[in-house]
Amino acid sequence: MVEKRIILIVVDGMGDRAIPELNYKTPLEVANKPTIDELTRNGLTGIIDVIGVGIPPGSAPANLALLGYDPYECYTGRGAFEALGLGLDLFPGDIAFRANFATVNDDLIVLDRRAGRYLVEGDLLAEAINDIKIESSPNVSIMFKHGVEHRGVLVLRGSGLSKDVSDTDPEKENVKILTSKPLSNTPEAIRTANILNEFTIKSFKVLSSHPANLSRISRGHKPANIILCRGAGTLPNIKKFEERYGIKGVCIAGVPLIKGVAKAVGLDVLNVEGATGGLNSNLMAKAEAAVKAAEKYEFIFLHVKGADTASHDGLIKEKIRFIEAVDEMVGRIIEGLNKYEVYLSITADHCSPIIIRDHSGDPVPVLIYGPYIVNDDVDKFSERDCLKGGLGRIRGLDLLPILLSYSSKAKKFGE
Amino acid sequence: MVEKRIILIVVDGMGDRAIPELNYKTPLEVANKPTIDELTRNGLTGIIDVIGVGIPPGSAPANLALLGYDPYECYTGRGAFEALGLGLDLFPGDIAFRANFATVNDDLIVLDRRAGRYLVEGDLLAEAINDIKIESSPNVSIMFKHGVEHRGVLVLRGSGLSKDVSDTDPEKENVKILTSKPLSNTPEAIRTANILNEFTIKSFKVLSSHPANLSRISRGHKPANIILCRGAGTLPNIKKFEERYGIKGVCIAGVPLIKGVAKAVGLDVLNVEGATGGLNSNLMAKAEAAVKAAEKYEFIFLHVKGADTASHDGLIKEKIRFIEAVDEMVGRIIEGLNKYEVYLSITADHCSPIIIRDHSGDPVPVLIYGPYIVNDDVDKFSERDCLKGGLGRIRGLDLLPILLSYSSKAKKFGE
Repeated sequence: MVEKRIILIVVDGMGDRAIPELNYKTPLEVANKPTIDELTRNGLTGIIDVIGVGIPPGSAPANLALLGYDPYECYTGRGAFEALGLGLDLFPGDIAFRANFATVNDDLIVLDRRAGRYLVEGDLLAEAINDIKIESSPNVSIMFKHGVEHRGVLVLRGSGLSKDVSDTDPEKENVKILTSKPLSNTPEAIRTANILNEFTIKSFKVLSSHPANLSRISRGHKPANIILCRGAGTLPNIKKFEERYGIKGVCIAGVPLIKGVAKAVGLDVLNVEGATGGLNSNLMAKAEAAVKAAEKYEFIFLHVKGADTASHDGLIKEKIRFIEAVDEMVGRIIEGLNKYEVYLSITADHCSPIIIRDHSGDPVPVLIYGPYIVNDDVDKFSERDCLKGGLGRIRGLDLLPILLSYSSKAKKFGE
Repeated sequence: MVEKRIILIVVDGMGDRAIPELNYKTPLEVANKPTIDELTRNGLTGIIDVIGVGIPPGSAPANLALLGYDPYECYTGRGAFEALGLGLDLFPGDIAFRANFATVNDDLIVLDRRAGRYLVEGDLLAEAINDIKIESSPNVSIMFKHGVEHRGVLVLRGSGLSKDVSDTDPEKENVKILTSKPLSNTPEAIRTANILNEFTIKSFKVLSSHPANLSRISRGHKPANIILCRGAGTLPNIKKFEERYGIKGVCIAGVPLIKGVAKAVGLDVLNVEGATGGLNSNLMAKAEAAVKAAEKYEFIFLHVKGADTASHDGLIKEKIRFIEAVDEMVGRIIEGLNKYEVYLSITADHCSPIIIRDHSGDPVPVLIYGPYIVNDDVDKFSERDCLKGGLGRIRGLDLLPILLSYSSKAKKFGE
């Protein structure tokens, strides 16, 4: 009997709006994507409200939803998913923050939220951060991990902490860093805000005098002299993918946040050489990884980031080209998996219209392809064509159950 | 003034997928069904997620949903609906099981889950079962009723029982019967599991030595020497149909489980001669019964089983022919009810794709026909055509309210 495989391909920010420069077409409509359009002719299409109708999704909750996890229950703050994505183990009670190395002056005015962005000294500086002791709460320990460029995560570990605290990162420049405030009137929130504020000031002290920063200044670079935090989060308490759906799943993604989402729901995470999460990501390497992963996993979640990056930067041509590269990737996957009965879905975690350079709440197009599925009349994969699709308008949470059902991996309700 | 009637026709397992042997069409697409297609041309179509998107429905909860009863609230276990369907009165506190006469060896290994299936001695053996006394709980009484072939129901009656117990039927052969276990850590569940286990062993003792079984063995038949139970259920506590919707309803069905669902929601149940629930069911007799029932009832729920039976057995031609017979049945109903203003809906309780020979979570096609309803462009009733239907994608729970509304029997919300 032929084994079944489910491949869910999420193209970050793929959905778009009518762009004047494209004669009011969308990048998906303009892109040359023969493989995806061929699958569309034989498949079923529709549109998805990933989080809810008209709600612009953040990346973490959007991908949770597409994996069948209700973001209103499972999205426990960005920091947690960032930390998991960078390979930190989180335990219940830990509070994790997305962190930036930033540049401030002596009055703690933010001069550069990203400390010049290119930070070869990040791992070295992180060591110094990890030596910080919280005097007001000696039982609370600090874990800091540097990611890519100016990015990192901070984890506070100890009893009696809360994620109900506000950010220290003002998310703009030429203003003073923020003082974290408790967002609920509990001793835990008050204490955690105090700890974060103490940590922030200490990070400034430790980093300002760090030799690596003195060296940066001497070379004319901005010092990475403070850690700014946002998105306090805790480990979500959720039923793991295999336990919930009865199949083993794997994630192939370049972006730490998405890897973190995958880890949180219990997918194994593969690290693929050249999968950068950027426009230059090696999508064919991801395709090969997917084909290989199918030997071990029944469910493969493949996330590519480039379309979103292009949208944020207003790059129309690059977005089109990236979609064309995705098409080649899909072709390689289909070819490589021809010994399986493949149920493949392509969608986006959200639209990122180039015209607004940010996530929007427009529904995203979706394609479901598989043998024996009753197909619809749609023969081209785009935002406009999928409006007429036979799936109709579904929610992000609906997608995985549909794929499980078509591949006979869903559980019957009652008898 | 012309009286209005609502006819809801549920064709069990009618929905299917693209079948290679049918040139990737479905049985519904291939079947010749002039009456239903004529109604479709003048009606409104769509697709229904009967329980929820991507959830393969069991028959009992699916039909509950189509009758407007939320299966997540009202589905209290298969046994209850089976018992009601066989005409047993259930009271709150009773625990009912779907039961099989089965054949085991002396080590209680299941040799045939259906004791050869043909069991003319069923009623006689049931008498002996009903004499079993539970020694560990003398206040608990046993009620056992034989149904068709190897089927029956067991009801435990007494105080302090629970439906949180596992099955004794392993649902496969060449394995030992299962020991029922409590599924919750309550005295009631522990006690009920003990009672069921005591009953099961006693059923083996009583049946093994029963003259009817000795006679079966002497004639070369398998003895029906044990009762295996599954699907513990209790009477659902729900508002009855007439009280809820303000109209009297009736059910015409061949299958005990569906009759049980109808009774549970307060529909009267007609017994129609020749309505077997099989492929050979007398559908014209059901049509006549529906026409006659319209004199007394405003709502007629008509369930036919054959399409599902054909799917489970992989019988493509038989499924097509059964759908064609349904078409004739619908023609007779329409003709017979011509003095009424008829609102007629045809749908399935679930898809049963022949390719998988089981229930699936695909949405089912639905047709709503009635005078003055604004129709859509769909002119053929099939899974594929209904994807384009004007009803869009609705839930099982939505169907009855829509029918009530079109027939002016729905209650206004607010003023």
